[in-house]
Amino acid sequence: MTASAGDDRSAARETGEMPVLGPGQLPARVVVIGTGLIGTSIALALRERDVDVWLADADYAAVLLAANLGAGQPLPADGLPDGLPDGQADVAVLAVPPAAVATELRTAQSRGLARAYTDVASVKELPLAAARELGCDLASYLPGHPLSGRERSGPAAARADLFVGRPWVLCPQPANDTTTIRLGTGLAEACGALPVAVPSADHDQWVALVSHAPHVVAAAMAARLEGAPEDALALAGQGLRDVTRIAASGSGMWLQILTANAGPASAVLRSVAADLAGAADALANLAAGDEQAVKYVADLLERGSAGVRRIPGKHGGPTRDFAAVQVVIPDRPGELARLFRVAEDAGINIEDVSIEHSPGLPVGVAELWVRPETVAELSGVLAAGGWPVRR
Amino acid sequence: MTASAGDDRSAARETGEMPVLGPGQLPARVVVIGTGLIGTSIALALRERDVDVWLADADYAAVLLAANLGAGQPLPADGLPDGLPDGQADVAVLAVPPAAVATELRTAQSRGLARAYTDVASVKELPLAAARELGCDLASYLPGHPLSGRERSGPAAARADLFVGRPWVLCPQPANDTTTIRLGTGLAEACGALPVAVPSADHDQWVALVSHAPHVVAAAMAARLEGAPEDALALAGQGLRDVTRIAASGSGMWLQILTANAGPASAVLRSVAADLAGAADALANLAAGDEQAVKYVADLLERGSAGVRRIPGKHGGPTRDFAAVQVVIPDRPGELARLFRVAEDAGINIEDVSIEHSPGLPVGVAELWVRPETVAELSGVLAAGGWPVRR
Repeated sequence: MTASAGDDRSAARETGEMPVLGPGQLPARVVVIGTGLIGTSIALALRERDVDVWLADADYAAVLLAANLGAGQPLPADGLPDGLPDGQADVAVLAVPPAAVATELRTAQSRGLARAYTDVASVKELPLAAARELGCDLASYLPGHPLSGRERSGPAAARADLFVGRPWVLCPQPANDTTTIRLGTGLAEACGALPVAVPSADHDQWVALVSHAPHVVAAAMAARLEGAPEDALALAGQGLRDVTRIAASGSGMWLQILTANAGPASAVLRSVAADLAGAADALANLAAGDEQAVKYVADLLERGSAGVRRIPGKHGGPTRDFAAVQVVIPDRPGELARLFRVAEDAGINIEDVSIEHSPGLPVGVAELWVRPETVAELSGVLAAGGWPVRR
Repeated sequence: MTASAGDDRSAARETGEMPVLGPGQLPARVVVIGTGLIGTSIALALRERDVDVWLADADYAAVLLAANLGAGQPLPADGLPDGLPDGQADVAVLAVPPAAVATELRTAQSRGLARAYTDVASVKELPLAAARELGCDLASYLPGHPLSGRERSGPAAARADLFVGRPWVLCPQPANDTTTIRLGTGLAEACGALPVAVPSADHDQWVALVSHAPHVVAAAMAARLEGAPEDALALAGQGLRDVTRIAASGSGMWLQILTANAGPASAVLRSVAADLAGAADALANLAAGDEQAVKYVADLLERGSAGVRRIPGKHGGPTRDFAAVQVVIPDRPGELARLFRVAEDAGINIEDVSIEHSPGLPVGVAELWVRPETVAELSGVLAAGGWPVRR
């Protein structure tokens, strides 16, 4: 991956022509057009860096909500922002659906809103092609895509830290001027993200693979549950919940994304469908007594396992760096606080915690992740505190 | 779902002939054959109830490891357990792969090891058919399946609380004597599980839907990552991690499970494959300009969303009953303890917590789930304590 500063040799090898981003420049004045989840989150992050932010949206109630959250001030509808020394913002961010980016870009450029323009759409080829077609100025437009999201949407779900530590793809264009690239990079950096330069066609294929196709795969698995007996669903465990979780999202935004990236998403889904049809055939043959058919299923499971191992973990993977201590906790007030206090008194920092509640029972199991060298001591103090513990 | 005591009317309606379990009887002496994850976890749970446990496994090192973990004592290889008043255990648990259950059952029954026998295999029709074929005594064999598991395997990954609050399917047979049903039910209860009676054919179709097919679907998606550019994988978010997580498991056990439940798993995978092939077609048509094709994708996303909503949440679904407060926490010792103490001092019980760390940065975001009426107060005390808070 090509970071704003760093080692991009392997990336350059793989794509042949990976552009490199120079140092970013922090914008002082930003207009955010589209105050949904992503636009408002960018605005909140910029406000924490004392950037002046103006907000616009077709839905003025969303603008007011975002402004009340501290994301900036409404952009006057009938002219340029007041009080700008040179009458322009540094960057205008088009945080609108993929199909609307080019039109909004043309409008903003015709108003002379900013020195540089970027967008945050989940696909990049479509907005670029539309911008070319509409005759937009490509020198001042740096297409972008922050790889962050939530299951919830709208300004109320916005978070200033939404982009912290996440990749933010930028697709530098041959026509881009240096100022545009530096301001676009600085915007991503100001949000705490890691700017990476990716050719737009590669971007669209990559997100089809790691984001768009998985969404449809989750939906296709979840669709089987629609008519399932309630008793069957009561047997569901964490595995089914994880596989299908992202399919819970409202389908509106995803339909737009899939429509805008239809070709690459189709190609990935075609190959998943073929593997699953192959697995269905193999299992049917196996059920009919053809023991050779097991090879197909074995191969698919092996390939899946190898594929999962290639996904980078969160902050280097807590499961690699830390060790887990399991402790059974009664579901009553103050238990977690008491547990953390006991750990603190022993000088042990709990790096991560996850809690599984037990339906219908007054206990849960907390999994506490700590540095491996503190496992024995933590287990000891928790056991002494009366909690049933297992490493 | 038919619990050991409870309202099973809807279940009975749906399946036509759902058997009902009576009250269980806690076994005093149990032999566990197969000291892998499940067998050792059962043994550990029973030991916590002061049940006498003997352990056996083809791999004697696994027996010794389990015994050292406190799971019981090794079963003498050349005879019945020493010191049993009537020469028999109450229950022998066959915690072996599906294809091995019937053979182990016949061996155990021919030794007269126990009054009642049960197994824990993830499929139920195959062991039952094999037991009939081998001429096993079906009066004393109650097929079972605790719906619990971990990504890790082997006795070292065992946990006494693995079954707490989870369903434990039992498949009462017409030939079963009352003692066998009562002891099998008591075994599940002793492990903290919720015994549910399910006809074996229903069980196999249901787990194909909620467990076996999702595993193959996750593998088929993950298999696409095997040859993907590293830069593409660096864009992966939590969605891809969740969809593919279960495919990381070693394929050996899953191959046995899928082989043993090939017919029902094949049927589910066939319909997932058809939906995905349909989505691939629709998206290809969409890319070629056929705007009507979007309807197919929209319908699949809607059905997926409806399907996810039918999965019961953990303890009734915290996302429904509780509200989330997001708080940014510095990654330094004592921060979580301090936060929980502040909440406790304000009399607020934190029902659940999840923490997202930010790679490369010294902060994380904790999501605290609390009763909705306490959100405002918690936000207030946390903000007063110096933490950046968002509801």
